[in-house]
Amino acid sequence: MDSNMVNAGDMNGSGNLMDFLDEPFPDVGTYEDFHTIDWLREKSRDTDRHRKITSKSKESIWEFIKSLLDAWSGWVVMLLIGLLAGTLAGVIDLAVDWMTDLKEGVCLSAFWYSHEQCCWTSNETTFDDRDKCPQWQKWSELLVSQSEGASAYILNYFLYIMWALCFAFLAVSLVRVFAPYACGSGIPEIKTILSGFIIRGYLGKWTLLIKTVTLVLVVSSGLSLGKEGPLVHVACCCGNFFSSLFSKYSKNEGKRREVLSAAAAAGVSVAFGAPIGGVLFSLEEVSYYFPLKTLWRSFFAALVAAFTLRSINPFGNSRLVLFYVEYHTPWYMAELFPFILLGVFGGLWGTLFIRCNIAWCRRRKTTRLGKYPVLEVIVITAITAIIAYPNPYTRRSTSELISELFNDCGALESSQLCDYINDPNMTRPVDDIPDRPAGPGVYTAMWQLALALVFKIVITIFTFGMKIPSGLFIPSMAVGAMAGRMVGIGVEQLAYHHHDWIIFRNWCRPGADCVTPGLYAMVGAAACLGGVTRMTVSLVVIMFELTGGLEYIVPLMAAAVTSKWVADAFGKEGIYEAHIHLNGYPFLDVKDEFTHRTLATDVMRPRRGEAPLSVLTQDSMTVEDVETLIKETDYNGFPVVVSKDSERLIGFAQRRELILAIKNARQRQDGVVSNSIVYFTEDPPELPPNSPHPLKLRRILNLSPFTVTDHTPMETVVDIFRKLGLRQCLVTRSGRLLGIITKKDVLRHMAQMANQDPESIMFN
Amino acid sequence: MDSNMVNAGDMNGSGNLMDFLDEPFPDVGTYEDFHTIDWLREKSRDTDRHRKITSKSKESIWEFIKSLLDAWSGWVVMLLIGLLAGTLAGVIDLAVDWMTDLKEGVCLSAFWYSHEQCCWTSNETTFDDRDKCPQWQKWSELLVSQSEGASAYILNYFLYIMWALCFAFLAVSLVRVFAPYACGSGIPEIKTILSGFIIRGYLGKWTLLIKTVTLVLVVSSGLSLGKEGPLVHVACCCGNFFSSLFSKYSKNEGKRREVLSAAAAAGVSVAFGAPIGGVLFSLEEVSYYFPLKTLWRSFFAALVAAFTLRSINPFGNSRLVLFYVEYHTPWYMAELFPFILLGVFGGLWGTLFIRCNIAWCRRRKTTRLGKYPVLEVIVITAITAIIAYPNPYTRRSTSELISELFNDCGALESSQLCDYINDPNMTRPVDDIPDRPAGPGVYTAMWQLALALVFKIVITIFTFGMKIPSGLFIPSMAVGAMAGRMVGIGVEQLAYHHHDWIIFRNWCRPGADCVTPGLYAMVGAAACLGGVTRMTVSLVVIMFELTGGLEYIVPLMAAAVTSKWVADAFGKEGIYEAHIHLNGYPFLDVKDEFTHRTLATDVMRPRRGEAPLSVLTQDSMTVEDVETLIKETDYNGFPVVVSKDSERLIGFAQRRELILAIKNARQRQDGVVSNSIVYFTEDPPELPPNSPHPLKLRRILNLSPFTVTDHTPMETVVDIFRKLGLRQCLVTRSGRLLGIITKKDVLRHMAQMANQDPESIMFN
Repeated sequence: MDSNMVNAGDMNGSGNLMDFLDEPFPDVGTYEDFHTIDWLREKSRDTDRHRKITSKSKESIWEFIKSLLDAWSGWVVMLLIGLLAGTLAGVIDLAVDWMTDLKEGVCLSAFWYSHEQCCWTSNETTFDDRDKCPQWQKWSELLVSQSEGASAYILNYFLYIMWALCFAFLAVSLVRVFAPYACGSGIPEIKTILSGFIIRGYLGKWTLLIKTVTLVLVVSSGLSLGKEGPLVHVACCCGNFFSSLFSKYSKNEGKRREVLSAAAAAGVSVAFGAPIGGVLFSLEEVSYYFPLKTLWRSFFAALVAAFTLRSINPFGNSRLVLFYVEYHTPWYMAELFPFILLGVFGGLWGTLFIRCNIAWCRRRKTTRLGKYPVLEVIVITAITAIIAYPNPYTRRSTSELISELFNDCGALESSQLCDYINDPNMTRPVDDIPDRPAGPGVYTAMWQLALALVFKIVITIFTFGMKIPSGLFIPSMAVGAMAGRMVGIGVEQLAYHHHDWIIFRNWCRPGADCVTPGLYAMVGAAACLGGVTRMTVSLVVIMFELTGGLEYIVPLMAAAVTSKWVADAFGKEGIYEAHIHLNGYPFLDVKDEFTHRTLATDVMRPRRGEAPLSVLTQDSMTVEDVETLIKETDYNGFPVVVSKDSERLIGFAQRRELILAIKNARQRQDGVVSNSIVYFTEDPPELPPNSPHPLKLRRILNLSPFTVTDHTPMETVVDIFRKLGLRQCLVTRSGRLLGIITKKDVLRHMAQMANQDPESIMFN
Repeated sequence: MDSNMVNAGDMNGSGNLMDFLDEPFPDVGTYEDFHTIDWLREKSRDTDRHRKITSKSKESIWEFIKSLLDAWSGWVVMLLIGLLAGTLAGVIDLAVDWMTDLKEGVCLSAFWYSHEQCCWTSNETTFDDRDKCPQWQKWSELLVSQSEGASAYILNYFLYIMWALCFAFLAVSLVRVFAPYACGSGIPEIKTILSGFIIRGYLGKWTLLIKTVTLVLVVSSGLSLGKEGPLVHVACCCGNFFSSLFSKYSKNEGKRREVLSAAAAAGVSVAFGAPIGGVLFSLEEVSYYFPLKTLWRSFFAALVAAFTLRSINPFGNSRLVLFYVEYHTPWYMAELFPFILLGVFGGLWGTLFIRCNIAWCRRRKTTRLGKYPVLEVIVITAITAIIAYPNPYTRRSTSELISELFNDCGALESSQLCDYINDPNMTRPVDDIPDRPAGPGVYTAMWQLALALVFKIVITIFTFGMKIPSGLFIPSMAVGAMAGRMVGIGVEQLAYHHHDWIIFRNWCRPGADCVTPGLYAMVGAAACLGGVTRMTVSLVVIMFELTGGLEYIVPLMAAAVTSKWVADAFGKEGIYEAHIHLNGYPFLDVKDEFTHRTLATDVMRPRRGEAPLSVLTQDSMTVEDVETLIKETDYNGFPVVVSKDSERLIGFAQRRELILAIKNARQRQDGVVSNSIVYFTEDPPELPPNSPHPLKLRRILNLSPFTVTDHTPMETVVDIFRKLGLRQCLVTRSGRLLGIITKKDVLRHMAQMANQDPESIMFN
């Protein structure tokens, strides 16, 4: 074999290699499950793709149209996500309404009607009796023809519990059998995925289907959980599904995450009917890489989703928002004090909830408790149903409760909370009812609310984190709304009975409408939600969209800020970050500030005393050497140096691609044997005859690995990892390779510096 | 001198050096004018400061309180900015109102009242005559006791022009004499400053004062410009002023820019009364580095500013927003077609405006025209006043015009635009007036609007960019509103007269109120503003805050998207980017995508054939060598290598700090002479006796310079420069230093790739 032939073989070989790299070979350019993506690489792959399409588009009209379609596909995906997310949210709302009412009774004229729809279609009712109509029958009426009395009550009670247990059992079984990823709120995992982590199947079609169905079941079962968080997960599943239809997104993990960010915005948009709030939620809370193009597209998706939901009109009121409120009274400066108190309450509740819930979830993870998820769900459902039924404020669905608590007492309000003693001499317009003394109904309601509050606080801690879909927006808001309403009624009665006190004298004359208890409920809800999630701007904007006016933004901000400060004083983590840490996901939070004085040299591997870094040399290792190295280590990649002596870095080779390249070469390339030399150089030297055919691997070499010097402060390294989305970074000193820092090393170091267990970071 | 003494001297010397580096020596750590800051360095300086305060805070209660104050200072600055920006905006609004009316007449009862305030306080007027009251006298009435007739008209005309010329002359003189930076809208420069450029005095106290005063003058003079853009500049000046009061912000250019981003949000917030829109404007359009903390603080500042403005209540209607509108009719699908047409118009207007305005401004810069700025202002003002006066739609202030165009025609509307022929048999509630045939007033108004539109389009091109404060939000919106209103009236009349056409048949029966021309005006305004500035989300959100409902967001989005697409088809740059390029500022736009296939090696200096890179060696150059190098080159810094042969990089030394260190050493350190060796190593070797005292400069060496390999694709390099805010980056190949890439090189390369003149980038 003369050298010419070797060269020819070489070219053939590299030709093969080229094909194999250009071809959509199943595994090239993808990542393994539970691994971190390299954002820079994804970005540059997308640019390559874009460049190819642009240059092709000049060739023919067909290619030009294809390039246009490609440019438009982003908008199409957004439109589809908006439509599907809106539709699913509408269907979920309708189904939850129907199934929640099914626990109490059934509509005789059409069993698929909820209580409200049933009585709405019946024309016989007057406005006051709008809850009662002959078509709607409680189970006791239907089964034993009794609507009142102890035995009817017990029968209804029993059936309520049975229905709840049925729904919950069905839900947990479905989740366990078909889609284990459908449990929880999904937001911690989505945050991690958006930051560049791969969890296969987490956003899959099965998860979408099962989560949607079980969400309806668990919400209807009356458990203390909400559908808002899981709706974000559902929307992200939609996003993942549609992005898999377009190669632009399905083949690029970075681009796919842009779509998912927008989908998260659409999810919040339909959860609350707040498109702007949804976009800001995605920006503030969920997303990692959020370029301006994504902002604009997210906004589009959020709007489409909101309008789709509105055209389905599940609330029957043509309103976009979940809790529509309209207050008629301004707020006064003196009220800021109770608002801030509510903020403090929200912060304390947030801290309490996060600590207890995390402790309980850790217990579940580490003890035998975790082995009986079905039993756990059944027990908690039974307890919830048994305690919830007797109290009217816990029996109904939590959203209805919040809605009632937020409402101002108008003249037509029949709720117990609005049982004020009216002055018979007074006839006033409907909207402007002065403060009145509380009637007996209000006092009863206060007691019931207090009991409901304690129950909600305790049961929510145990509910969130079970193996069923569960969101905590709604329970948190309910806790805050109950506390807020009670404070509001207290302030109102104080102002009514002591309107000569200095603080009330200026703004609360007798006969004036000065305190709106509903506003206190809203402020309390914002404070509690803020305390648990540590959302700030998006929270205020969502609340602003609910009230639809800037009037009440100062109370909301005051409470949100106070709540965040109080909660932050006890621990910086919100509930989602806490669950991320609990699960050991590799999430590099953009909000964490790293302020320690360590250097790259303190973090890099190998540490002092450890074995030297596993490196490849550019032109002196045989195929066998490389294979041994791959077998003996489990690193994701290997730096390539000029020689072991000089340690001058020339590039970085991915483990995955090395394995594929060697496997391919051994199969397809003649002459590549175990003692072939592996060359990473541009032009391998001419080999003496009879030496084995060399293996040229420059093509798989990343020639621009990221390097920092050993003196680089870790805060800069953390910043670089965060902003550029790196997977690993090489450490050099005056041109020599010293070590490597991976994302896992960075996270472990950060955990160590924060006095946490570095071993809690489990994935790379 | 034995070696021990040398060592002692050394230690003394490095002690001196240490002092001088730790001391707030006037020039260390600051930047020269028209230079770019290094974001990473600023960030790490802030972390150092923070670390120092945290560790000190444990020492005593006083230090703890100081650390708390430091932590709170950010919020205090925001509060102050909000208060001052809101107050200034209120004062400007009031002054503009008064001075605009002063051109036509004066209030006899109190000369400081504007026309509206004057007649408001007078009780004699009925609602219909609210524009006329005896206290308010036109100049002709006052001077020659004539209110009607040709001579009165001519006198009023003449005085109108004279007042306008006075105001304009005063404004341009003030700007020229006291604060040349006060001209223009300021947004291009603020974008550049926020991206990390230093322009001393641009946000100074004098600029603030003069810009505020001259803004009132030029807006009152009737020139075709708005106060919204300059208000952003004014708010940023406030931000700069308050940040100079706190050392946390005044000494750190990075932190200062966070405050400025928030101030920009406050500026837009008061300009339109749209706090959320303001924050998104700052995020989308102005800011460069926008961490979440800034988002939250910006929101706070924007709210404080908006509420301050509202409590000043310059519009007299307790409304927060500039143009408050309330429509009573929904929009119909078929209307999307004219809305999209308006979007196309907006995009075309944007392209036309940018092209013509840039051409004119370039002419002004390069020809003799630029030498007579006062004359230019006088001529344009005279032309504007002469043409504007006869037409009622151009005579009044542009904001009033927009307000009228946006308004729906209610029953009480006295405007010419609402001169419809009423059906005498119809009595309907006020809010729900059906479509009616247009009366003669409407036809006159259409002609006048068409003339006003052409005039506005032409004059705005020449006005924006003169040496006076000038914003283009309002003129752009006026162009769009006029076009939109005309289209709206056209569609309305078409629908009225041809309600049997297929497209109208479904939604526009006779007697229905189906077309709202005011909505068309609003959509047109959004389209034109979007075409000129290329804002998207923030534009829609501002408009949403103006209308206060999600109802009309789809028409607004359709128009905004169309306008952006049409405008982008003719050129990617918005007006602000175009002005940045015109002025050659070093602005690395986050929105520009760099997709070319070049590598770092193609961009770095030295190019092939150029003299080798100027480097310092770590232990072989004398003080004189270094001084010669500094003298002969004008680079901002020099890489330090092990030796000229090995070219292995060990660090980077800033020119500025080298000069200071050598100067300081020569003055204070005994024995440092011209042939002393400069050491950048950690431990200089022991020198033979009698050799000159060495100069140790390791302290000023940046040991973690940023490096990339020569094979790094330029798109990655651009990304790194953008995201990390670098000033320069060193290029290596297998550990050897090859060259350097500065921000200017990157920008020049990008200009070259986009077929622009690379020499247009002038600053570094």
